[in-house]
Amino acid sequence: MLRTATCGDLRITDVNKEVTLCGWVQKTRDLGGMTFIDLRDRYGVTQLTFNSDWNKTLCEQARSVSREFVLQVKGTVIERESKNKNNPTGEIEIKVTELNILNAAITPPFTIEDETDGGDELRMKYRYLDLRRNIVRKNLELRHRMAIETRNYLDKQNFLEVETPVLIKSTPEGARDFVVPSRVHNGSFYALPQSPQTFKQLLMVSGFDRYYQIVKCFRDEDLRADRQPEFTQIDCEMSFVEQEDILQTFEGLVKHLFKTVKGVDISTMPRMSYADAMKYYGNDKPDTRFEMKFVELNDVVKGKDFKVFNDAELVVGICAKGAADYTRKQLDELTEFVKRPQIGATGLVYARYNNDGTIKSSVDKFYTEEDLKKWATAFNAQPGDLMLILAGNEEKTRKALSELRLEMGSRLGLRDRNKFSCLWVIDFPLLEWNENDTNLLESLRGRWVAKHHPFTSPKPEDIALLDSNPGAVRANAYDMVINGVEVGGGSIRIFSKDLQAKMFSVLGFSKEEAQNQFGFLMNAFEFGAPPHGGIAFGFDRLCSLFGGVDSIRDFIAFPKNNAGKDMMIESPSTISDEQLKELGIKLA
Amino acid sequence: MLRTATCGDLRITDVNKEVTLCGWVQKTRDLGGMTFIDLRDRYGVTQLTFNSDWNKTLCEQARSVSREFVLQVKGTVIERESKNKNNPTGEIEIKVTELNILNAAITPPFTIEDETDGGDELRMKYRYLDLRRNIVRKNLELRHRMAIETRNYLDKQNFLEVETPVLIKSTPEGARDFVVPSRVHNGSFYALPQSPQTFKQLLMVSGFDRYYQIVKCFRDEDLRADRQPEFTQIDCEMSFVEQEDILQTFEGLVKHLFKTVKGVDISTMPRMSYADAMKYYGNDKPDTRFEMKFVELNDVVKGKDFKVFNDAELVVGICAKGAADYTRKQLDELTEFVKRPQIGATGLVYARYNNDGTIKSSVDKFYTEEDLKKWATAFNAQPGDLMLILAGNEEKTRKALSELRLEMGSRLGLRDRNKFSCLWVIDFPLLEWNENDTNLLESLRGRWVAKHHPFTSPKPEDIALLDSNPGAVRANAYDMVINGVEVGGGSIRIFSKDLQAKMFSVLGFSKEEAQNQFGFLMNAFEFGAPPHGGIAFGFDRLCSLFGGVDSIRDFIAFPKNNAGKDMMIESPSTISDEQLKELGIKLA
Repeated sequence: MLRTATCGDLRITDVNKEVTLCGWVQKTRDLGGMTFIDLRDRYGVTQLTFNSDWNKTLCEQARSVSREFVLQVKGTVIERESKNKNNPTGEIEIKVTELNILNAAITPPFTIEDETDGGDELRMKYRYLDLRRNIVRKNLELRHRMAIETRNYLDKQNFLEVETPVLIKSTPEGARDFVVPSRVHNGSFYALPQSPQTFKQLLMVSGFDRYYQIVKCFRDEDLRADRQPEFTQIDCEMSFVEQEDILQTFEGLVKHLFKTVKGVDISTMPRMSYADAMKYYGNDKPDTRFEMKFVELNDVVKGKDFKVFNDAELVVGICAKGAADYTRKQLDELTEFVKRPQIGATGLVYARYNNDGTIKSSVDKFYTEEDLKKWATAFNAQPGDLMLILAGNEEKTRKALSELRLEMGSRLGLRDRNKFSCLWVIDFPLLEWNENDTNLLESLRGRWVAKHHPFTSPKPEDIALLDSNPGAVRANAYDMVINGVEVGGGSIRIFSKDLQAKMFSVLGFSKEEAQNQFGFLMNAFEFGAPPHGGIAFGFDRLCSLFGGVDSIRDFIAFPKNNAGKDMMIESPSTISDEQLKELGIKLA
Repeated sequence: MLRTATCGDLRITDVNKEVTLCGWVQKTRDLGGMTFIDLRDRYGVTQLTFNSDWNKTLCEQARSVSREFVLQVKGTVIERESKNKNNPTGEIEIKVTELNILNAAITPPFTIEDETDGGDELRMKYRYLDLRRNIVRKNLELRHRMAIETRNYLDKQNFLEVETPVLIKSTPEGARDFVVPSRVHNGSFYALPQSPQTFKQLLMVSGFDRYYQIVKCFRDEDLRADRQPEFTQIDCEMSFVEQEDILQTFEGLVKHLFKTVKGVDISTMPRMSYADAMKYYGNDKPDTRFEMKFVELNDVVKGKDFKVFNDAELVVGICAKGAADYTRKQLDELTEFVKRPQIGATGLVYARYNNDGTIKSSVDKFYTEEDLKKWATAFNAQPGDLMLILAGNEEKTRKALSELRLEMGSRLGLRDRNKFSCLWVIDFPLLEWNENDTNLLESLRGRWVAKHHPFTSPKPEDIALLDSNPGAVRANAYDMVINGVEVGGGSIRIFSKDLQAKMFSVLGFSKEEAQNQFGFLMNAFEFGAPPHGGIAFGFDRLCSLFGGVDSIRDFIAFPKNNAGKDMMIESPSTISDEQLKELGIKLA
């Protein structure tokens, strides 16, 4: 080893030890006869001391180094005069006796500090320098710890980690596949997996019983903010289980991760039906760090002269505790907020329940104090609370109110990043109507698409509705939601060939298409498939949630930008004509 | 759970327990009034008993099930009359009280037994059934255990697991890249990594210090037997180390794996120079489970009337202990063996050192008994030994003798799959001359190519030879060899921009090509790159070696065949015209 200790190792108990350290120059300070260098590595920062009284040449040499030089130094651990209690090595320093410059460095394009002066684009281009920043490296250390603890938990539960292939076959269902032209079989293509879904189901058919994998998946979607074309899943499947077994096994996993990685005890993980989530939060991934449930007001507010409410399909509101003192300006801000095009409400009605017991609303000319008291009763509001009400088309209004609820949660400080509220949302609908999807049957506009994926089992009691009322069929499907973020989702799977064929037919596949795309899976079901189900967690997202950061990019070592480009290696890029020729393709 | 115990759980101490089991019908036996079913799952096999005296209907139902049906049964654990000591559950059976057929099964195309009647192609097509076989599942369980223990060891040594990207950039060096056309950026392509080499080096530049990853890599080579287009590496890199530190760290890993996975103690891991490996074994991955070193005989055999030896560049042989009693027929077989085109020797000379002290050779007319005694002395042969000698061009002869040595090792039972001999081969040449490679400079035939890869550091003392005698430059490169199989290899890397540029120039890259392909790495070296080095193990190969099986395919859940095809999902396959159009490509 080129070193005997790291820059995070040494303490007051090491005084008088002869040591060799290696690392990067974090900063230098030149105080006349004395020069100090902060030497940094992955483990910490240690102060090096040079004194021209001790060794003039060495001190000159120390003065010649700049930020980010790579050094090897030998010296003696001594006690520091002015101790730095904020640094674990802050009680000591190294009296240097030998200095080797292992590599010089030109000035980095941004500072290697937690608060850097580098913009997003610059930091992406020089990602290897961005990764030197403590704060970024700590994110990846967290990710490492999450992966280790995930495997520990699942290994103890008898799950087998099995690697599924990356070069698979393209399917027309769902988001777009990345494809890989075959050189050996010109005109044919592999596809990269959007998930190992069919392979993990085949492993269940094989009797593997409990499978997991922390695995890269790929989706060639038009990129939205904070989506990556390649992403990582904790992918799991179990046989001979019912939904409840999966919920318990994987809330166990998440509790284990919180406990071992964050030191946080998650005591409960309530279940909420999709129907309730939509009714009370207008959202299938409610942030349950705070209550502020939706209250429906049709019965309470209709029948007066206020046309907006009378004409509305739904009048619904939330009660913001203790917000009655909101100023006119704040209320205007909220009105502007809900009227933004991406939210789309036409206006906002409010009613302040003042501390003196009076209620003042924005619609006082239509409602008496007595009317408003009834509102307060419906909201279970107390003096000091603020009632916020939207009205209109049911679906849109719920969605808009959900945004307003989250906004109020943020404004009232109810969305603490260090508080974690976990939840299962269950009983999802099996199908949803997609007006624009004409992927499969070009002649028809709109079709039923799988809400989860085409392998999800309908609830047995709802199967009869598949023909008569597909939209009413509930699935044995579940999502895990933490702090309003969907971190994982899964389902009990279809394991009968006939039901799977029926499902493909409902989704608009012809028999031939179903056989061509998924024949191997349906055939496999004929050879003794066990009841099974599973789940997949978005690992990047889970890490960012644990790290208390919104962007998943901060938890990926070498992310791509929002256009799917790797700015550091400049990819994607052109390839040679010879390569194209060998692959049997031409540019269009 | 649909079960209360697995098919491997129950013992004599569980007698009288009420249990529910799930599994597959391994076999059924119908003995008139009694019916027995062996129920199989991942954990074992448990016998179910039905008796028409107990319950006639149930017994009828049991008779109706066939192989590979999926059952759920409830019943009582009872002691078996005729116990099966070979099965851990063989002392008990289940007196069944309820039988549910969870799924029926058609007859599988081959038997689900360790010794199956299914051919290779059929088992690839129905891989999900092949995976039901105990022997195949155990291979993947071994793989799981290897992965877990690899991570345990490296995690304890402070290595961080970091995921590197799969969608990267194509480079012209080395074997062929798989490429991925970009839909968003038509005309541009990502490439799949042949290894995360440059990314792990960038992580060292980032100060990550110790990195590892168990990672899929991709190589679009013309497939040879037992090569897969996608394969898995244990990929590692360390900073502030010298070669010796890497050797010690990773022989530690391999010893840990042997100890924890196989219960085998590996006491020593000798180092052998590439030069010695070639001299004594004719091979850079010698099987050192047995000695039988090469003995050079030019000084001993030349100068007589035997033209073959006199004209040969090299006369070299091995001494097969105790093989003097080889029959004429056996010796003819060996001669045929070395004359096969893939080995290419022109003939084989032998000399038997008989137990009576006489020596008889195939060239007695040229050599006296006294001459032959000198051979025996050179070989350090004892009565009872067989000397086998080849002659000709040095390189070809060594290669042929290496094959003969392995053949003799096998014939003499010296290559026991349960014995493990580990070895480091070090001091590889940096470069080798490739007569046919004109990839980079079309005008020149032949060029120097990197023996390992273009990032490998020459030994500092040999750098001066890069211009004058490139072939003589040794690298700080090393391979781990176990039982004659190269399981891993790595090197100390170049970490200076100038030396890296020099290396690209020796390899025939123009400055522009080097900058275009690897500019990001050379630029990174300017910002303070630490000394670093690493290694990668072929994980599939390592698992197959631990499993005592030659084929890596047996240790991959869903392998491709020798033509790179997945026979189960029928991939690669065609894609739609619409997909091609979106990707901006056409078939040529």
